[in-house]
Amino acid sequence: MAQIQMALDSLDFDATLALAAQVAEHVDILEIGTPCIKHNGLKLVTALKAAHPDKIILVDLKTMDAGEYESAPFFEAGGSITTVLGAADMATINGVIAAANANGGEAQVDLIGVEDKAAVATAAAKNGAQIIGVHTGLDAQAAGQTPFADLATIAGLGLDVKISVAGGINKDTIQSTVQAGAAIVVVGAAIYGADSPAASAKELRALVDAA
Amino acid sequence: MAQIQMALDSLDFDATLALAAQVAEHVDILEIGTPCIKHNGLKLVTALKAAHPDKIILVDLKTMDAGEYESAPFFEAGGSITTVLGAADMATINGVIAAANANGGEAQVDLIGVEDKAAVATAAAKNGAQIIGVHTGLDAQAAGQTPFADLATIAGLGLDVKISVAGGINKDTIQSTVQAGAAIVVVGAAIYGADSPAASAKELRALVDAA
Repeated sequence: MAQIQMALDSLDFDATLALAAQVAEHVDILEIGTPCIKHNGLKLVTALKAAHPDKIILVDLKTMDAGEYESAPFFEAGGSITTVLGAADMATINGVIAAANANGGEAQVDLIGVEDKAAVATAAAKNGAQIIGVHTGLDAQAAGQTPFADLATIAGLGLDVKISVAGGINKDTIQSTVQAGAAIVVVGAAIYGADSPAASAKELRALVDAA
Repeated sequence: MAQIQMALDSLDFDATLALAAQVAEHVDILEIGTPCIKHNGLKLVTALKAAHPDKIILVDLKTMDAGEYESAPFFEAGGSITTVLGAADMATINGVIAAANANGGEAQVDLIGVEDKAAVATAAAKNGAQIIGVHTGLDAQAAGQTPFADLATIAGLGLDVKISVAGGINKDTIQSTVQAGAAIVVVGAAIYGADSPAASAKELRALVDAA
């Protein structure tokens, strides 16, 4: 059964908590987006985990250096997953994996901007990364790109990892994304941009569960 | 005259402000390090600028996506420079440049982890980036790497940008770094790891001014 990850992309502390409260019952993972964590800091992890102790909290740190030093406090504060860039030095990726393992968490290697995605995914999986993120960023989405070809490439490798897919997924594409091998589907604008985020999350939940 | 940038790499809010107070008179730029900004959030920019209104504040966001959305609030809060990863999509780099220009600030493109550094530096400079960062990260430094060969490559391009150099610079290497073309030298551990950070900063200032 695939998991749904809700990307909380607001910059505002209270708006982030309010959106999480609206959609939490329909999703598995609450993601604090990169601009949001830079804006609000560690205390947002603590607050979100306190409000949703039964949910998986992902902190989208997109770590590029100082892997263990940067990520460890976020696991200790209640995060279950943090992200590290596939574009980072492998020592940095290994540092995040070490911090995850020390705290019973998981490291997600985000392939955004990586040239040879198959090579990085394979190396990271070999080193113990639990999740590989196939990710078309917001700026690349604005230029019309999608994550679906990359998903096929990474799924075809048969690695012993969960594949997470992010990049404009909506109700028209979420089932095919799961069928193509995504264990985690990340949804942002399709929920927070809807008239009713809760209704949209509920609809996407039903689509994922039926996929 | 080259500028000295002090990297504030603590995670603690008060310790960051205390270190800045010790060294500010000897440096030009106060850098809030990446783990530090993720830990503390935007309010640290506001506090640091309030304490040092005459200093240049650099926020080491290492932006990888959503360039304008992520960086703009940090310029508005008092940052004069934010960093964007050279590994990012050019649309992301352009977004940070736009946010910088809209606020009278500067965008630094950090070449950490970039394969073809000359190509990215050239493209970013053409698009209006004011600063190119030659940067050997903490994890790569731990593996024995230095930024000096990359500095020679980038300086040799003759781009109309300031070159910033970071990666374990200390009193033995700071003058040769300036002489090799660095307009900004970033110092971290050589100051905050010294018995007297203020004395170390003062010594480095004299070395830079004599270079």
